[in-house]
Amino acid sequence: MIHPQQSSGMPTTKYAPFQDQIEVHLPDRTWPDKVMSKAPRWCAVDLRDGNQALIDPMDSERKMRMFKLLVRMGYKEIEVGFPSASQTDFDFCRELIDGGHIPDDVTIQVLTQCRDHLVERTFDAIRGSKQAIVHFYNSTSVLQRRVVFDLPKEGIIDIALQGARLCRKLEETVADTDVYYEYSPESYTGTELEFAVEICNAVIEVIDPTPDHKMIINLPATVEMATPNAYADSIEWMVRHLDRRESVVVSLHPHNDRGEGVAAAELGYLAGADRIEGCLFGNGERTGNVCLVTLGMNLYSQGIDPQIDFSDMAEIRRTVEYCNQLPVHERHPWGGDLVYTAFSGSHQDAIKKGLDDMERRGKAAGKTINELDWGVPYLPIDPHDIGRSYEAVVRVNSQSGKGGVSYLLKAEHGLDLPRRLQVEFSGVVQKRTDAEGGELTAGEIWQMFSDEYLHADTAEERWGRFTPVRSTISGDEDGTDVIEATVLDGGSEVDIIGRGNGPIAAFIDALSRIDVDVRVLDYAEHALSAGGDARAAAYVECAVGDRVLWGVGLHESIVKASMRAVLSAVNRAERDAEA
Amino acid sequence: MIHPQQSSGMPTTKYAPFQDQIEVHLPDRTWPDKVMSKAPRWCAVDLRDGNQALIDPMDSERKMRMFKLLVRMGYKEIEVGFPSASQTDFDFCRELIDGGHIPDDVTIQVLTQCRDHLVERTFDAIRGSKQAIVHFYNSTSVLQRRVVFDLPKEGIIDIALQGARLCRKLEETVADTDVYYEYSPESYTGTELEFAVEICNAVIEVIDPTPDHKMIINLPATVEMATPNAYADSIEWMVRHLDRRESVVVSLHPHNDRGEGVAAAELGYLAGADRIEGCLFGNGERTGNVCLVTLGMNLYSQGIDPQIDFSDMAEIRRTVEYCNQLPVHERHPWGGDLVYTAFSGSHQDAIKKGLDDMERRGKAAGKTINELDWGVPYLPIDPHDIGRSYEAVVRVNSQSGKGGVSYLLKAEHGLDLPRRLQVEFSGVVQKRTDAEGGELTAGEIWQMFSDEYLHADTAEERWGRFTPVRSTISGDEDGTDVIEATVLDGGSEVDIIGRGNGPIAAFIDALSRIDVDVRVLDYAEHALSAGGDARAAAYVECAVGDRVLWGVGLHESIVKASMRAVLSAVNRAERDAEA
Repeated sequence: MIHPQQSSGMPTTKYAPFQDQIEVHLPDRTWPDKVMSKAPRWCAVDLRDGNQALIDPMDSERKMRMFKLLVRMGYKEIEVGFPSASQTDFDFCRELIDGGHIPDDVTIQVLTQCRDHLVERTFDAIRGSKQAIVHFYNSTSVLQRRVVFDLPKEGIIDIALQGARLCRKLEETVADTDVYYEYSPESYTGTELEFAVEICNAVIEVIDPTPDHKMIINLPATVEMATPNAYADSIEWMVRHLDRRESVVVSLHPHNDRGEGVAAAELGYLAGADRIEGCLFGNGERTGNVCLVTLGMNLYSQGIDPQIDFSDMAEIRRTVEYCNQLPVHERHPWGGDLVYTAFSGSHQDAIKKGLDDMERRGKAAGKTINELDWGVPYLPIDPHDIGRSYEAVVRVNSQSGKGGVSYLLKAEHGLDLPRRLQVEFSGVVQKRTDAEGGELTAGEIWQMFSDEYLHADTAEERWGRFTPVRSTISGDEDGTDVIEATVLDGGSEVDIIGRGNGPIAAFIDALSRIDVDVRVLDYAEHALSAGGDARAAAYVECAVGDRVLWGVGLHESIVKASMRAVLSAVNRAERDAEA
Repeated sequence: MIHPQQSSGMPTTKYAPFQDQIEVHLPDRTWPDKVMSKAPRWCAVDLRDGNQALIDPMDSERKMRMFKLLVRMGYKEIEVGFPSASQTDFDFCRELIDGGHIPDDVTIQVLTQCRDHLVERTFDAIRGSKQAIVHFYNSTSVLQRRVVFDLPKEGIIDIALQGARLCRKLEETVADTDVYYEYSPESYTGTELEFAVEICNAVIEVIDPTPDHKMIINLPATVEMATPNAYADSIEWMVRHLDRRESVVVSLHPHNDRGEGVAAAELGYLAGADRIEGCLFGNGERTGNVCLVTLGMNLYSQGIDPQIDFSDMAEIRRTVEYCNQLPVHERHPWGGDLVYTAFSGSHQDAIKKGLDDMERRGKAAGKTINELDWGVPYLPIDPHDIGRSYEAVVRVNSQSGKGGVSYLLKAEHGLDLPRRLQVEFSGVVQKRTDAEGGELTAGEIWQMFSDEYLHADTAEERWGRFTPVRSTISGDEDGTDVIEATVLDGGSEVDIIGRGNGPIAAFIDALSRIDVDVRVLDYAEHALSAGGDARAAAYVECAVGDRVLWGVGLHESIVKASMRAVLSAVNRAERDAEA
């Protein structure tokens, strides 16, 4: 029988399930029937929420690099700091404005608590910018009301409204700036929905937005507390109950405590939100903010323009790693080192076939790869789109099969191995990886292939009984080919003659006269296309005595390549017999 | 105005949205109304799906470490390899069985393709085990049928059935082993649901499971192609259409290409699945398999026993990093280095208040922390549960406020600073972090606190005008305190005398006689609890001339601690005036 799992012994009773803390009741939800069709408004908060969670927060040089990256990628709303809480943030905000670093079509956003002196300092920070979003917040959750503020709901609403009123009043101090507002009921996911909508609607009343000059209501999963469908339900509930919906932009700000920030953002967007805040590669407090790269690329992979340029993913990643001084994980969706890589044989095989199919379809239709529907197993997008090459796609370890090995031989050396030869050579490779472990580079695979099949160019590296020296072929009067060849047998030159229906048959015949028993079972040849190489490749499957195995030959002359292939098979059989 | 985003210019048209590829129509879905209430059956596939995606796959020593870790944590179903495809996997399987390493209540699982010689080799691998799951698969997606197999649906079904039949036949060759089956229509997410259910039902018919001896139907998101609600819809659809449901265990195997593997697993589980396959910390091809740590801890944080022991998270992570030779990211949910850490001031402040509240509630109820409902802002669980200490929770950088600094002074030195003193000292800290960047250690914060407030023990480190030397206090006949003190003023000893309503008032009076103008505005003191320290701490908020600032004194005698606190404030005011 399959035995049941046992209790972990961990103290589970101290935690209450989400549904016992916050009620979200929406049986007539509509979001699960929707699909995404366009990009949301993005707001990048790397310079604030991301920055505040760094072991070593950015200095102004790193801040500027991050800001310029975000602008270059296409973000139009960028939260640049919490200027009232940090002198560095304040100074950076001033540097951006006074140094003229903010493009006209980019809006900076600054965070502030609702306390008077902080709001005032915030307006000092944005003075002179063309437009700015003042993002004020206070915490509204059941837990924080009790343990942090020790205030009833009215007191919490008062904090928000006092902030809102002061903001409106201070607008006159920044007459040159088009001021927008964002309000966040922080710790929204731990707030009763009725209270969340009450405080938001009260703030909306004070800010008094219009359809032409909307305000943003941001609903953060400050701590991710539930499955993403519960978050989506709550967003749809809020969207239905917020006042003046036509004047309000509903924004999401998911964190990732349960590893579901991306899903929360997407399902919340389906549920009626308009805008998403996040960070590149998911930087941010604890488990991070939702990852803007993943969200954007998820849209892209569905044929939806993310309105953000991810085409130089390596540069994006490099800059983020430099600014945050934190690595991007090897398996991070869309941007990690290993995410377009296949190690397993069956995956490699399928990828190879998919790429071949794309090539075939492209040729048949006279189209480039970007004009075809993408369809390659295990590669949800074309790695070229984000600046990756195909070379990194297939990597070989002990779990790899013929597909990966063959792919690399084709990609790097133009060799198109027949299927049974692929199987044979992958056995050679696997014996080595099973014994030694680790990954094989394309160079190492080539070396193994040469050692196994090819005639060495130098006497020192030479292996096998026979080495071709020279040969001539002439046609007989009845159409039979006659071969006169010289080979090294052991170390002595031997002249041999044979006749047959074609040069290979003639060579086989010549070998039979010195008691080499070889028959050709299958045969393939092609020109080498790689790098202007004028050589040809010949592959022959031979029965040598009672062994069946392949030989490979490369030569400028296709005939000589074939003869080398036969000798390769014969030599391999003798080597195996000796070993 | 806030300017709209612009086109990215990336070639979006080559990708078709999921709903145009695969139809999933389930308007009467029921899963969004469900919540999780118990752990699913888990199957850990680290040794197979995880292993095959490693740059350096595990050798037998690393494999054994991983296997033993999984057993220790409580996993009862463990996929140990793909023995027909890799000699290392085959040998490891034999080593497990022949070496008696598999506990009686643990079932090993092995993967195989449906090809005859591979199935045969698979049965060779499991022979002698008490029980085993033979997991056979073939790829069923529209794309793979076309580009990889070039077969119609019937041909794909034949592959599966041939595998199923051979399995049933080979059972007699492993008579001592209780053999269970798992079938995966690989690349399920790219397969039409009607075809997926057709092939699964055909396989079920051949395997002929019973309620007492069920088979597993595993529905892998081999490539994550859609939002997790679409996956959940598809699972609910399959669960409704699978034959002999009472004899079938429905299993999920999500990958993470869109960063939504965790959500797919959870929503798919709500949709009626029974079992989830994944890897610790989400190892696996490309972006990885769904993370079993995240799934388990997500349940745990909702008060549901995951039936897996995560209490030594550091050991789990260490072993996984050793076996996989890949790091766990700093922000990986539940296990990353930074996920219980707060750098921002407001977060630190709230955490401190939450922990204080827990302590208060515990004392009031006479309960341990594990007997209380957990409720600390920004900490979804108690870090103690997984073996973390609170020390790492609060870390101080330029984005930190008074909360973190105060928390560290309390946790490490037993100092419980009054709120206004917290604000004052956090300003000192922030000036330093704004100027120098980086993180401050608890030790550096203590040094800053000492330099700022405390009398040095040695003459070399001494700062400030006054140093206490000695003092005596006596009561007057009318209840007034009289102090006779000696202080160093500059470097010369001065004797002073004062009287007042209590020792501090008397000391203030004494200072006034040498023209030191100081008044006490607020006052707090407490014994130092840390480490059996017999000293007391005194904090006084003073007006010195027109400056208001705090002084701090530590001494075995609370009276002398208070006098030191007053001198600390006076000295600080003079130092500031000089600077």
